[in-house]
Amino acid sequence: MKEVIMRYPNGKVYQGQTNHLSTSSKGKTNFAKRGMKLEEMINQANQWYLLRDKAVIHKKPTPIQVVSVDYPKRSRATITEAYYRSASTTDYNGIYKGKYIDFEAKQTNLKTKFPLHNIHQHQIDHMTNCANHGGICFVLFLFKERDEAYVYPINALLKDWSAFLANEMTAIPLTRIQSKGYQANMGYQPRIDYLAAVDEMLAVND
Amino acid sequence: MKEVIMRYPNGKVYQGQTNHLSTSSKGKTNFAKRGMKLEEMINQANQWYLLRDKAVIHKKPTPIQVVSVDYPKRSRATITEAYYRSASTTDYNGIYKGKYIDFEAKQTNLKTKFPLHNIHQHQIDHMTNCANHGGICFVLFLFKERDEAYVYPINALLKDWSAFLANEMTAIPLTRIQSKGYQANMGYQPRIDYLAAVDEMLAVND
Repeated sequence: MKEVIMRYPNGKVYQGQTNHLSTSSKGKTNFAKRGMKLEEMINQANQWYLLRDKAVIHKKPTPIQVVSVDYPKRSRATITEAYYRSASTTDYNGIYKGKYIDFEAKQTNLKTKFPLHNIHQHQIDHMTNCANHGGICFVLFLFKERDEAYVYPINALLKDWSAFLANEMTAIPLTRIQSKGYQANMGYQPRIDYLAAVDEMLAVND
Repeated sequence: MKEVIMRYPNGKVYQGQTNHLSTSSKGKTNFAKRGMKLEEMINQANQWYLLRDKAVIHKKPTPIQVVSVDYPKRSRATITEAYYRSASTTDYNGIYKGKYIDFEAKQTNLKTKFPLHNIHQHQIDHMTNCANHGGICFVLFLFKERDEAYVYPINALLKDWSAFLANEMTAIPLTRIQSKGYQANMGYQPRIDYLAAVDEMLAVND
């Protein structure tokens, strides 16, 4: 299957399929689109925070392994062979209230639990490291069907992760996420006000 | 010119030419290689700091605009057309001593000055934003011919940048960098001990 990404009349290229979640099967391509949507929601919130000087948080670019590049004369370099790589960190980081902030965003179509196989060991390791150095670290869970999002602290996640590795748990129940996490308001501007939920989390921890 | 990047026997791909500094002219390709070398030096230092639990600092992936992707059966997605994009932030960020740290690394072959056209407005803006929020922000200058590196604080750079924009300055004299910056030791492990220079900078500012 060859997928050519559309160009808009303004010359900009549609980026919907450049997400690293994109895979070959149709079902997973749908999942990728939904993943992209979450990414857009967070990018929009980050832009909103930046313009209001509330925080400086950016998504890291998707890591891509470039194998072959063409350098046409009088035209910019064209990458002709490249592959998606897996990230060694999380997708988002920056500074908020003078503190380092670092998080991963994940979503599910399930209504009552979040499957842990969607989280990766290197993400856990990276957030643990950052939290040990004093960073604000969490996963932002989106329950798409419920249109509900939660800031879930790394400390709660670490307990679930241990249970997952011990084959005692495959998914975090929504009730636990509601109990240990902080719900983020879903609105128009910003679409996900996750920093308000982070404020609640910081207030509890202070 | 078509450039195929070599694969090592272990199957890993040499990344030397994937740097966004790569361009078409021979002179600039050399510059790119030198740029890569600086990147490797910093990545090595960051790995060294990470293993000693001193800091969690990573280089952000080079942003790439993917235009076309092949999804061959039973094989991973192959990007067949893509372009380098310019970054909206700096190349490096993370957490050090509980603080957000954010910097750009630049090098020159000149011996007595650093040309300001190698720095971009969006990098200045991003570091200014982060510094205003309490982050540690600087440019790490490498004078390759001298094998000397300096941590140069954003506040000093902002003055130079104003003079550059007013056409009053094209390059920062090395003497000014030595006076306002903090020299980083060049050794074996880490190759550039830039965090020791950051410590000096923080001690002065505290």
